[in-house]
Amino acid sequence: MTVIKWNVRAGTYYDSVVLMQLQRGLLELDGVIDAGVVMATPANKDLLATNNLLPDTVSANPDDLLIVVKADDDSSAENAINQVDELLTRRKSSSVSEDFRPRSLSAAVKQLPEAHWVLISVPGRYAAGVAREALDLGKHVFLYSDNVSLEDEIALKKTAREKGLLVMGPDCGTAIINGVGLGFANRVRRGDIGVVGASGTGTQAVTAQIHNLGTGISHAIGTGGRDLKSDVGAITAHQALDALKRDDETKVIVLISKPPSPDVATSLISAAQNADKPVVVYFIGYPPPARKIGNLHFAISLSEAAETAVNGNWELVIDKKLPITNYYLRGLFSGGTLAYETLLGLQASLTPIYSNAPITNYQLLDDPLHSRAHTIIDLGDEFFMVGRLHPMIDNDLRIRRMKQEAADPEVGMILFDVVLGEGSHLNPTGELVPAIRAIQASRKDIEFAAMVIGTDDDPQNLQSQISALEEAGVKVFRTATETVEYVSLKFGANKQNQFTPVNLEQLKQPLAAINVGLESFYESLISQGAQAVHVEWKPPAGGNEKMAALLARMKSKK
Amino acid sequence: MTVIKWNVRAGTYYDSVVLMQLQRGLLELDGVIDAGVVMATPANKDLLATNNLLPDTVSANPDDLLIVVKADDDSSAENAINQVDELLTRRKSSSVSEDFRPRSLSAAVKQLPEAHWVLISVPGRYAAGVAREALDLGKHVFLYSDNVSLEDEIALKKTAREKGLLVMGPDCGTAIINGVGLGFANRVRRGDIGVVGASGTGTQAVTAQIHNLGTGISHAIGTGGRDLKSDVGAITAHQALDALKRDDETKVIVLISKPPSPDVATSLISAAQNADKPVVVYFIGYPPPARKIGNLHFAISLSEAAETAVNGNWELVIDKKLPITNYYLRGLFSGGTLAYETLLGLQASLTPIYSNAPITNYQLLDDPLHSRAHTIIDLGDEFFMVGRLHPMIDNDLRIRRMKQEAADPEVGMILFDVVLGEGSHLNPTGELVPAIRAIQASRKDIEFAAMVIGTDDDPQNLQSQISALEEAGVKVFRTATETVEYVSLKFGANKQNQFTPVNLEQLKQPLAAINVGLESFYESLISQGAQAVHVEWKPPAGGNEKMAALLARMKSKK
Repeated sequence: MTVIKWNVRAGTYYDSVVLMQLQRGLLELDGVIDAGVVMATPANKDLLATNNLLPDTVSANPDDLLIVVKADDDSSAENAINQVDELLTRRKSSSVSEDFRPRSLSAAVKQLPEAHWVLISVPGRYAAGVAREALDLGKHVFLYSDNVSLEDEIALKKTAREKGLLVMGPDCGTAIINGVGLGFANRVRRGDIGVVGASGTGTQAVTAQIHNLGTGISHAIGTGGRDLKSDVGAITAHQALDALKRDDETKVIVLISKPPSPDVATSLISAAQNADKPVVVYFIGYPPPARKIGNLHFAISLSEAAETAVNGNWELVIDKKLPITNYYLRGLFSGGTLAYETLLGLQASLTPIYSNAPITNYQLLDDPLHSRAHTIIDLGDEFFMVGRLHPMIDNDLRIRRMKQEAADPEVGMILFDVVLGEGSHLNPTGELVPAIRAIQASRKDIEFAAMVIGTDDDPQNLQSQISALEEAGVKVFRTATETVEYVSLKFGANKQNQFTPVNLEQLKQPLAAINVGLESFYESLISQGAQAVHVEWKPPAGGNEKMAALLARMKSKK
Repeated sequence: MTVIKWNVRAGTYYDSVVLMQLQRGLLELDGVIDAGVVMATPANKDLLATNNLLPDTVSANPDDLLIVVKADDDSSAENAINQVDELLTRRKSSSVSEDFRPRSLSAAVKQLPEAHWVLISVPGRYAAGVAREALDLGKHVFLYSDNVSLEDEIALKKTAREKGLLVMGPDCGTAIINGVGLGFANRVRRGDIGVVGASGTGTQAVTAQIHNLGTGISHAIGTGGRDLKSDVGAITAHQALDALKRDDETKVIVLISKPPSPDVATSLISAAQNADKPVVVYFIGYPPPARKIGNLHFAISLSEAAETAVNGNWELVIDKKLPITNYYLRGLFSGGTLAYETLLGLQASLTPIYSNAPITNYQLLDDPLHSRAHTIIDLGDEFFMVGRLHPMIDNDLRIRRMKQEAADPEVGMILFDVVLGEGSHLNPTGELVPAIRAIQASRKDIEFAAMVIGTDDDPQNLQSQISALEEAGVKVFRTATETVEYVSLKFGANKQNQFTPVNLEQLKQPLAAINVGLESFYESLISQGAQAVHVEWKPPAGGNEKMAALLARMKSKK
């Protein structure tokens, strides 16, 4: 008959390593079958229950430490619980040279003034405070801690951006700065591939594979998983991308993230288009707009991102710097799928973009009869089709719409498709070209582009249709892919970033860092040959929340 | 001073060609500046208004024909309106051999009994009725008409499936059956690539490019754009895929669609996995699960789909027929991104699949502590992390979860990641392997697979970690991509289809078809050398809805 005994300790802070070691210590005792040592959050209590370690009579609050022992008999259980204090002390005394360690971040900075980096892995509820202190001291922050609020993240990142500092995280698992891994990081050789990673093990998988493929990493800058959500607006990713764009030692950039908010994806892709080096983009779960748009290369897996970065053929990069226009695109399609694929490709870099056949709801054009900003219209949509022939047969609707778009002074390009073949109009350009020429007479500044779908066996004579368009100055493409690349390069790249740049020299200096939280991260820095100081951190008032609140109030009254 | 005059004709049916020709006839008249001839739906009235052709005083219902003329002066406008009847008659008398044409589908079938195909392009509100008639006559339907209700589509397709007949559409633009294009279709040479297309111009773009690249098409079967939505369940796409799988003349299948409903995507991908030939999949806007999973090749653009179908290297296809299991996968990850990328890849073929870090909401696992069906767990999620070390440092949580999963008799595979590097546990397999061996002692039938991320410079010794796993019978992969392919092939392919197969012989016979609706589609069939009969179709009661309803009631009382 097994026996379960437990002990609840209110309002005292122990770090996770201590808790793990206490649990292991208990498990080694005679007669102990299982043990759990957790902060008594609902999730952790559920977890104990799943392991049959939570009797109904246990009562503990989320801030309490809950110690549960399951043993063969009553005395073994009792004995184990009685040894908790001793096990906690044993752990403490095994820690070396503690007395020589600074007990605050500011003291650590005095000890290692050349440290530009602060690693923070204290529990979430204390992490923002430590990060704020680090920023006040002018240090970049690697914020491993999770359970940090979104509000704190935004506030920290805005402060950091003003100062030209990075906040990598919260919940940032991985970074490699100047050859030294922060947090969880594989050992990889130095090289010319830079990484911006809004995904921890994503960065690990990509940097490890780049190493395994024989090349290496300049810097890998983490951002934390929420950075690419609209609320945060990719503050860190933009800073990191900008730094790697300016870094001469970085020849290729890899940009990885879980699915970003669409607006954030667009702003980052536009910023990446402005780089004068190749950027491999992998937004996990985000449909790639193309395989390649100018200097951008889109991957569909972590390993493909790594392979592309290593083996990419960059010869033709950046040969297509088109004049960038501030005007709008209007795409007038007869083919629904062609409209859709074009929108899918362009949404990555043109913003705002609307359509009567949107991919996401916020792209929906209120009134299909009137375009706004960049617009892609499917003129074959059933909205237009009651009692009317399809625009592949009857050009009237499209010609009227072309004239309407041309009357809008903000329009810079009219894009359309010409779909040949059986069933279609026998000479579509015979009607479209005169309409285009009429528009050109008054709007020389509007560029026309066409996507022509057809074969040399089609009844319309493919070559003469293409020639008629080209003679009228229409830029002709044969696939949506080519069209998307051209239009993206024309409209996509945005203005320069408006923020204080991160000081590149600080990335290039031998890494020196201050560690607050998990001691193993400090040890890892030392083992990599970096200079580091570990702060013997304790939460305010030893983790007693009520006392801490009282202290904070007294402090603010001073 | 321009003058606008108009004429409203209630309850009379004219086909779209007549309306277009009337409008063009009016525009040729002296003094006429612009003209509009439309069914007076709200959309069409808006369109007239946009073209300044809709005075406020016009009153017309959606079933009414509205004729508007803008002219230089009153008499020109008056004259034009007065000529409407004559223009309508002129159009009529120009049509040849009308008298010899059948006036009903059943009469047409008697005239061309070898026709297995009926093309329907009558207005949407009549189309379902004609399609039903065609199915009753045992014919495949190409349903070009749009504005057909979803309910009608589902009913028609269910009926057709029972009979082994195809309903391509509604709103199906394109098909190529045995070398003959139906609706809008490019002329392409015959070849060994078959296409299933839930997208009209998508099918055109892909088939045209395949021709332009020098090869050709066996059959291209359209489905209509809604076929891959949950409500319809891809009835036609499944039938078409099944037919092309069985067709010896088809060596490669291309499957294209706008974004399918996730459940439908999974069912189609599983069906495609069952093919013993390569299938190129392009679901526009759907993030590809991988570049390749067994015989499946995922493209990210229409042109890439065409290029892959033509140039694909199929040598290694189908060498990996793994024993398919009916049991479930449990993935226990320490890396959030690795979990996410694995889920992204597996969701395409494993169903149902759940996660505490879902890609779509319906995948959300209610209780992160208990798996269901196929499950991918991110054990590093902050839910688990309060007061606990990350699973890359502390293996306790994962080992407990492995035991828990192994206690579930429905579990067939446990997948996990081992992420090495700085900061991570110094010998994770030292703790994981004994736990695995303990499980294997009682559950020999559970397969273990691991994804190992690391480099040869990592502190853990990559090779010894891999060897320890392999010695314990764990299947080791180095990337999510490889893992996804292996697991997909193991669990993905589903059972055989349970429906009446389409009669392949009917696809292989010289195409003979009956056309109801747009005469140009009939002419196109003839010009391609197909046998065809055009039905001189008129709506019931000449398009007078009230009269038609009365007739229908009388008929039902008979």
